[in-house]
Amino acid sequence: MYNSLLAHIRRFVSLTREEENILINALRHKKLRKKEFLLKEQQVCPANHFVLKGCFRMYFIQENGVEQIIQFAIENWWITDYQSLDWQLPSRFYIQAIEPSEVAVLDYSITADLCNQIPKLDRYFRLIVQRAFAASQQNLLFIYTFSGEERYHHFNEAFPEFIQRVPQYMVASYLGFTPEFVSKIKSRPASRRISR
Amino acid sequence: MYNSLLAHIRRFVSLTREEENILINALRHKKLRKKEFLLKEQQVCPANHFVLKGCFRMYFIQENGVEQIIQFAIENWWITDYQSLDWQLPSRFYIQAIEPSEVAVLDYSITADLCNQIPKLDRYFRLIVQRAFAASQQNLLFIYTFSGEERYHHFNEAFPEFIQRVPQYMVASYLGFTPEFVSKIKSRPASRRISR
Repeated sequence: MYNSLLAHIRRFVSLTREEENILINALRHKKLRKKEFLLKEQQVCPANHFVLKGCFRMYFIQENGVEQIIQFAIENWWITDYQSLDWQLPSRFYIQAIEPSEVAVLDYSITADLCNQIPKLDRYFRLIVQRAFAASQQNLLFIYTFSGEERYHHFNEAFPEFIQRVPQYMVASYLGFTPEFVSKIKSRPASRRISR
Repeated sequence: MYNSLLAHIRRFVSLTREEENILINALRHKKLRKKEFLLKEQQVCPANHFVLKGCFRMYFIQENGVEQIIQFAIENWWITDYQSLDWQLPSRFYIQAIEPSEVAVLDYSITADLCNQIPKLDRYFRLIVQRAFAASQQNLLFIYTFSGEERYHHFNEAFPEFIQRVPQYMVASYLGFTPEFVSKIKSRPASRRISR
């Protein structure tokens, strides 16, 4: 059930069979229907989630009622609101399944104990979060440097699986422009591709 | 020399005196003049840096030549380009001292060994990076939700020490507007403060 998670962990650290069993027994398995939520605004985020199957979006609702997506997650990604999780404060975000999905749930209440038992998990999570933070530093570079059209093509090339799976209006929300604009730039050949 | 770093680490994990000594011997101490660089574009980022004294900005240069600041760091903050560090790839960023500064340098080449010797450092760095990533998730919320003026007042209230220490044009660059706009909103009382 958790094979993809164990394979993902092996890319960073080596757990013994016994440690793998401790971890597996600490996890909860959760199935979600399409549009079901892992987290809603005002809720204290209870867990970190590893996507075993499916696809999620993390978003908040602006004062004018518009949904702004800040992150997607597909298979082999962890997704949570770290601010709400680490401080156990109410979240400003929603995390919702875009497809029928399955996640491994690592509850906040047992994370410290688990990492005490298996310190290599601290290493694993450090490296995972470092990559997420690195991506967010790079993301600022894209937000400030590239036009909407350039960001769409970059996103398309970097994450082709998203473009196939995610409704167009969600890609538009993530990139900060209207669905009509996505239709427009999809309908013509890319005149200026991102070279880096 | 590293007392502030050891105190910072104690807020997250407990090291033995021997582990503290191993860490201290692994660090390099570096003094920087105002405007001196820790990292320049195209350089492979060689280390993570803990600010013992002073203030830094991390920025990139846009195609039109304009500097865009994405992060500041003062005492007790770690600053690096995690993308460049983790993958040992050329950086797109500059990290520059805004004041005469001192940092503890943790070289990339010895980080894995050091964390093998002192696994509690994996915990410490995991928690540090989680906070940085949490802040970047919240930052997107501010970028998308608040006007320039609201973001200025929020920044002012959250980080009053920055506003005192950092030149106005750098705060403007970080918030994504012109120095003239900062002057304008500084010169009048805040009409709408951020309540959260």
